[in-house]
Amino acid sequence: MSTHSVLIEGQWTSSTGAKTFQALNPATREALPDLFPVSPWDEVERAVRAASAAFWRVRGWPGDRFAAFLDRYATNIEARAAELVAMAHAETALPVEPRLAKAELPRTTNQLRQAATAARDGSWLRPIIDSAANIRSVFAPIGPVVVFGPNNFPFAFNGISGGDFAAAVAAGCPVIAKGHSSHPGTTRLFAEAAHEAARDTDMPPGFVQLIYRTSHEDGEKLVSHPLIGACGYTGARATGLVLKAAADRVGKPIYLELSSINPIFVLPAAIAERGEKIAEELAGSCLMGTGQFCTSPGLIVLLAGSQTDAFVESLRKRFDAAPVGTLLGEGVLTHLEHGIATLRSTGAEVIAGGTSGGGAGFSHRNTLLRVSGDRFLAHAEALQTETFGNSSLIVVADNSDQMSQIAESLEGNLTGCLYSDTAGQDNALYEQIEPALRQRVGRLLNDKMPTGVAVSAAMNHGGPFPATGHPGFTAVGMPTSIQRFAMLQCYDNVSRPDRLPPSLRDKNPNGKLWRLVNGTWTQSDVV
Amino acid sequence: MSTHSVLIEGQWTSSTGAKTFQALNPATREALPDLFPVSPWDEVERAVRAASAAFWRVRGWPGDRFAAFLDRYATNIEARAAELVAMAHAETALPVEPRLAKAELPRTTNQLRQAATAARDGSWLRPIIDSAANIRSVFAPIGPVVVFGPNNFPFAFNGISGGDFAAAVAAGCPVIAKGHSSHPGTTRLFAEAAHEAARDTDMPPGFVQLIYRTSHEDGEKLVSHPLIGACGYTGARATGLVLKAAADRVGKPIYLELSSINPIFVLPAAIAERGEKIAEELAGSCLMGTGQFCTSPGLIVLLAGSQTDAFVESLRKRFDAAPVGTLLGEGVLTHLEHGIATLRSTGAEVIAGGTSGGGAGFSHRNTLLRVSGDRFLAHAEALQTETFGNSSLIVVADNSDQMSQIAESLEGNLTGCLYSDTAGQDNALYEQIEPALRQRVGRLLNDKMPTGVAVSAAMNHGGPFPATGHPGFTAVGMPTSIQRFAMLQCYDNVSRPDRLPPSLRDKNPNGKLWRLVNGTWTQSDVV
Repeated sequence: MSTHSVLIEGQWTSSTGAKTFQALNPATREALPDLFPVSPWDEVERAVRAASAAFWRVRGWPGDRFAAFLDRYATNIEARAAELVAMAHAETALPVEPRLAKAELPRTTNQLRQAATAARDGSWLRPIIDSAANIRSVFAPIGPVVVFGPNNFPFAFNGISGGDFAAAVAAGCPVIAKGHSSHPGTTRLFAEAAHEAARDTDMPPGFVQLIYRTSHEDGEKLVSHPLIGACGYTGARATGLVLKAAADRVGKPIYLELSSINPIFVLPAAIAERGEKIAEELAGSCLMGTGQFCTSPGLIVLLAGSQTDAFVESLRKRFDAAPVGTLLGEGVLTHLEHGIATLRSTGAEVIAGGTSGGGAGFSHRNTLLRVSGDRFLAHAEALQTETFGNSSLIVVADNSDQMSQIAESLEGNLTGCLYSDTAGQDNALYEQIEPALRQRVGRLLNDKMPTGVAVSAAMNHGGPFPATGHPGFTAVGMPTSIQRFAMLQCYDNVSRPDRLPPSLRDKNPNGKLWRLVNGTWTQSDVV
Repeated sequence: MSTHSVLIEGQWTSSTGAKTFQALNPATREALPDLFPVSPWDEVERAVRAASAAFWRVRGWPGDRFAAFLDRYATNIEARAAELVAMAHAETALPVEPRLAKAELPRTTNQLRQAATAARDGSWLRPIIDSAANIRSVFAPIGPVVVFGPNNFPFAFNGISGGDFAAAVAAGCPVIAKGHSSHPGTTRLFAEAAHEAARDTDMPPGFVQLIYRTSHEDGEKLVSHPLIGACGYTGARATGLVLKAAADRVGKPIYLELSSINPIFVLPAAIAERGEKIAEELAGSCLMGTGQFCTSPGLIVLLAGSQTDAFVESLRKRFDAAPVGTLLGEGVLTHLEHGIATLRSTGAEVIAGGTSGGGAGFSHRNTLLRVSGDRFLAHAEALQTETFGNSSLIVVADNSDQMSQIAESLEGNLTGCLYSDTAGQDNALYEQIEPALRQRVGRLLNDKMPTGVAVSAAMNHGGPFPATGHPGFTAVGMPTSIQRFAMLQCYDNVSRPDRLPPSLRDKNPNGKLWRLVNGTWTQSDVV
């Protein structure tokens, strides 16, 4: 069977590489038939040059042009929904319904359309005008962007259709997508839909490109290439840190989403008030998508007590009783086994599951571990090892001070949750723990599980290292996520209006753009 | 004579270090009498712990508290103006008037007061509220900040009084200032004024601290310390890159201002129209402060022609005729000599100056070099070596395409200027060059020299690497520069108002804060 083509410079092109790979069906462990190429460096660099050429062609285009592409692309995806869902199901074993068809696909097209709206309204530009000094600043596209998609959201975070892709395009940046090797067929279908949308909306060749795989060395060269503006990477921490080091050495912004154990603090009066309800929510959140969410709760912190023991027992039963899902691939299973082994070797005790198997294909029994607060504090780094998949660690603190110390010992995370009672008995403990937790997470939740990441302007899907590489940016939420692919450009004493971008001219380009003019946010013209 | 104390945890304390250093008077090359300590690691770490303790005490304080400190500090500086100016003059040889007394000192207090205003009005917080989903985000202080000040602005960029200091404090972050070794006495006077202001405005011990010097190794440990939130560094590229690598390894934001040659493109019709006027401006800008500005024009790009030869000759005469200033220190002189040697060895020809001496103390003759466009393109990296000081390189391009290629070969810079004629003859060439230059600089100027950096909300004192470490941030201009010391914090389903920061509660805290509520910027309450 022939090897699939890569999408470079507006053409589906046979790869010049000799190496190929196949995806596996995780539910059967069998190789899927299609062959995909590993692109050699000359091919990667051809994509970089084409992206750069595309950037210079689209630079200065009004946001409408990028919006038109994004909207058309969303429509094209919907037209191929059945095919995409079937392929993603085969490649990831994620359920067709509701997950792929009813949740992730609509989320993906919704994200693309929100990006289109942001591109059109220019809300990410944040123009600032000082008319007396005639100094004007605005955000502008940073240049070609490389997006590395993860394994766990074949649609919503795919390198060629997900949040990073949408944000980069909304900023006016061409994208080179590096598909994840576990779902190349899904990525290919998206690339076809994107390619057609690009053609139909007159985007230049090289605006959207796809390579499936490179060597690790070429990945490092790619993220540090002089013609690349920035990168987005969502995936495993080890690989991400290698790419980060390469990009950092040459001062290229790289936005990472690396790992997060999403601590959940369930305070004692909340357990007394509604322990069963919380246990149900918590088990559901931990096992949703077989625990393969960036925001899956991997760490549950409780205060010792008899009601806590009952709560743990309720959780244990739910983990035991829940069906065992199929993991995304062999790598996830191996990584999960290693993670659990690390936790065990540091003193965590398995109270549910603990061994591989139990479901179809690549699977691992739903696993709960437990460790004391003392032990956690003594081995805080090892006991924060991410067990990506259906495994969570319960830490039982002896007292409130220890619970607070546990919060202080946490690494950076995407999310942190506090469950407290409604009558206010937990308030003092909440106030003791919240500051340390707040400073260590991007999103702090109350009485709500973190696994839902709403596509909202107010969302922060980010957080301190090692959750991400910089705590000032979010990967989800328009227009803020667009900022990652922008650079600040100031015009000083540029008096001829045609030498300024429309957003900085005295006349508000559409009467609707919010601009900070002489210290006041306004939609008015400069007078 | 005794060694000066360090300011740690709210006390002037004898350093535990055995090593000391002295500043030199650059005009006489003689050591100044005062001894300053090199702090050992235990002392540095004590400052880090005190800063962390201070952070937890001030976290959540209203901006008014930080504003009160900043305003008081500005007043205290004015009360010590004569002393500060005399000390800085002795340590830097910068002229008392207008530079130190009439320009830099007022700029410094103005910056501190603008930071106070921004702290008070909360304009950097950028609250975003999605009331239907009950998701709310706001920027919050990132934690203790270390500021490394440079040698060239003993007031306006000093680690304990300059732009980074002001921005970090406005965000609510304690600062550990690492004074520059060339002007420790000036830094000490600022620290006294800051210490008094902190005491008078009830800031906790450890909110403002000063160490004068550490080993390089301890500098790396400092910027990567787990209790540090972020760093600001302005200074030499080599040192900055070492600190950047250390901070990057552990995902700590570090904001750098490293080097910039600030290219000036003077287009031919502008030379024909007003060559003498431009030559005067340009020579003035190049030699201002003996060329020791971050934004000093180090590269002048011209198009070959007889009027260009006359322009170069006019520049040459002005460089020859201008008085030779004193450099900030021996290191600057050595660095300048090495830079000029690199340019010469790559084919640049000295047309004015070229040798050390000519002024008082550490000095170097005002130096102009010239190289062809061909040669520049063949050795673009070496010929972009920064010659920090009173030396600039003229590149004469053969034709407009080559001029454009020169723009495309530039590294990232803080600024780039285009001079063009008023009648429009240069327009086509402007349009050819501007895009490449625009994408490589933080601030693009028309018909204006870059050496003035207005403290304006619209200013961008930043730019692509290696000018800085990230092109999305500015070091000058409130409130945008504050963003560097902030992290994005989202509150999801946090329904009790007292668990939200005031900026995110339904009620606008002062009726004046601009917030993005359900997609619209407004000063109204959430209804």
